[in-house]
This record gives sequence, structure tokens and C-alpha cells, in this order.
Amino acid sequence: MPVSPNASAEITAFSWVPPFARGLVRDLRVRWACEEIGLPYRVRLLDARTAKPVGYVKEQPFEQVPCFRDGALQLFESGAILLHLGEQDERLLPREPVARSRATAWMIAALNSVEPAVQNLASIDLFYSEEEWAKLRRPGAEEFVKLRLSQASAWLGEREWLEERFTVGDLMMVTVLRNLRHTDLLSGYPNLVGLQARGEARPAFKAALAGQMADFED
Amino acid sequence: MPVSPNASAEITAFSWVPPFARGLVRDLRVRWACEEIGLPYRVRLLDARTAKPVGYVKEQPFEQVPCFRDGALQLFESGAILLHLGEQDERLLPREPVARSRATAWMIAALNSVEPAVQNLASIDLFYSEEEWAKLRRPGAEEFVKLRLSQASAWLGEREWLEERFTVGDLMMVTVLRNLRHTDLLSGYPNLVGLQARGEARPAFKAALAGQMADFED
Repeated sequence: MPVSPNASAEITAFSWVPPFARGLVRDLRVRWACEEIGLPYRVRLLDARTAKPVGYVKEQPFEQVPCFRDGALQLFESGAILLHLGEQDERLLPREPVARSRATAWMIAALNSVEPAVQNLASIDLFYSEEEWAKLRRPGAEEFVKLRLSQASAWLGEREWLEERFTVGDLMMVTVLRNLRHTDLLSGYPNLVGLQARGEARPAFKAALAGQMADFED
Repeated sequence: MPVSPNASAEITAFSWVPPFARGLVRDLRVRWACEEIGLPYRVRLLDARTAKPVGYVKEQPFEQVPCFRDGALQLFESGAILLHLGEQDERLLPREPVARSRATAWMIAALNSVEPAVQNLASIDLFYSEEEWAKLRRPGAEEFVKLRLSQASAWLGEREWLEERFTVGDLMMVTVLRNLRHTDLLSGYPNLVGLQARGEARPAFKAALAGQMADFED
């Protein structure tokens, strides 16, 4: 059981977010990675409704979560934390240089080629749906998500994972795809539905999700 | 002179893009990194006006540039290519683990916390400025850019670079900030103007930019 109050590694997460965000907050990515490799971690909880603690901006310049701390290492950005954990354990990131770089490419593709499209649509739907610009923009935003999904789907084809085996690239992509759960867009791409389902079926994912959900106050 | 027709490393770039995009296309990041470490590279040019070559989607699933090829390695996503190059040379990415992870964090912050805001504003201004939704959305999109710039500026303070020394984190951030050149937003953050200027003053940047510009047809 990796969650342990005395663990050296610390993940910063939220004690409260609105229901639509529960199960999607990005500390899920780091919890999942720690669960995959059995790295014990403790959780520090912040309340998303209130101002961040004084000094938090020194840990996370953009005042988001997650942060990660372990000894002398103070780290932010979920992608950087996953790469750090991947360097500790080849179950997340292969040691062979080509496979390692390909895993990194997919992790960054999830963050920079897919997530901006998904996040744009999600923010239209979840934050701005009553605004006139959002109503006008939504069809175009949805089309761009579909383009990115069709491209990821075409790559994936019959593969089980984005490359030869599960890596941080799949972990990141699955968490990005989850941000479409308020829509039925993913159902148009059955192999991406399968990718997400295989990710979510992993015991480490289940433990991470249960941990995040258990840490929310009602 | 790193550009060499017989180099082992190959960067895929564009032979034509509209004037507003010249000097901003993302192969600049990879050229710059190669120039920093003196890694010879050849350039393969595609025309952004025409369909990609058959099979390009196998190299770049999202049909963007840059791609990078070197021996058995076929890589996409500028961030992943910078990390690959950084693993070859500590001038791009420190060997010491904490400094290395911090550099990675800033590179990913540029890609995932700053660039989506900047790119959203740039696409409103450069692609959709005549559309009603874009006119209505622009003030909010600009506010979000300012939030991200103020946060990056607050971190940077009096520092020369985002961490102790120049890394791929600075390289990426400078190329992201350049996407605001059609606005005067950056001038509100003099230390970020200084960061960009220090990056652009590096001989490797100048060589990379000159190379990208020289490869465009009129």
C-alpha cells in the first residue's frame, strides 16, 4: 500500500474540488505512477476553494497541483514528475534509449498535442457554457478534438499500448482522454475506448483513483 | 556549422509557411538545441500548403513538424526531441538529478502551462479575428495569458535563467514567448523581455533562426 504518512515522497493534491473535477485532478497521474512502482507516498491536501498557503508559489509557480517532493527534490508539472519517477523504474520508462524516447514522445504528445484541444472543449462545457462566445465556438472546438482523437486512433490501430508496452506515455494519454467523460466523443474511436479501459483496469490506476476520491471532503 | 547535407541527424521543417509564422515554426527549437551542442543536422523540407507525403503520419501521428531522425531513432514532439538531445549533452540538460528534473519541469511548464494560453490567443488573433466568438473571447483569452506571464515573471525575478543556468527549459520558454510577438503583452513583464532577449542573443539561437528563415521559399 504506497500511501503512507511517513513516506519520503509527498504529493500535493486537493481536499475539495467540484464534483465534475473529481477523478480528473492531475495528482491522479502521479499517484498512479507511484502505485505502478510501489513507491510509498504521503499526500498533502490543499483546498481548491481557498487561497494557496503562503509560499506555495515557490513550489508551484502556476499555483496548480500536483507538486512532488522527495528529499532535496521539489518538482512541479505532472509530466516532469512522471519522467522523474520513470527514471527510477523501468516499469514506467524503458531503459533502452529508443523505446525511452518514444515513451517520452507520447507523454509529451498527450500534454501538448491532445490535452490543449481536450481542455479547451472541457472548459467551454464546464466553465463557459452559458457564454455567447462558447456557444459559437463549441462546434469548432469539438471538431479539433475529433481531429486529434482520429489521429491518435489511427496511430494506435490494433496496438495494446501506444508503443510496445505500457509506459508513462499511455498513463498520460489515458488521463487526458478521461477529461472527455462529460461527452460521448470518445465512443467514436473504439480503440481509444479500449486503451482507456486497459489503463483504468490496472490495479495501480484503481488504487490511485480510490486514493484521490477518498481524500475529497464532501 | 551544424547544417550539413550528410549529417546523421535529420530535422523535418517547412519550406513555406505564411509570413506571420516565419521564425515561429517549432523546428526552430530543435535547430537551436542542435546548434547549442554543435550537433550536425540535415533538414528535410515539407510544404505546409500541400498534403504531407504518404507515410508521414507514421513519423508524426499529428502531421505536424518537427520530426527528428537519427539512426534507429524516429522521434516527434519538440519537447521529446529536446530531452533526447539533452541526454546527449549536459549543456542542454544538467547531469545532476535535481537540476535535471527542474530543467525538465520548466520545459514542460512552457509546453503545458504557458503555451496553451499563448497559442489560444495567437490563434484568435491570427486565424479567427473576424469571427464573432473570437471578438467576444479575446479579452478573457488575453487575461489568461497575462496571468501565466505574471506567474512566470514572479518566479523569474532577478534570475538570469529560470533555474541556475541555461537549459532546455529556457530554450522552450523563449520559443513559447516569441509567439506573442504580434502583441505588446510581453512588455508588461520586463524580466521576461530580458529572458527572451538573452535567449535570442545566443549565437546558437541566431544560427537556428537564420537557418529556418533561409529555408523558406518566397
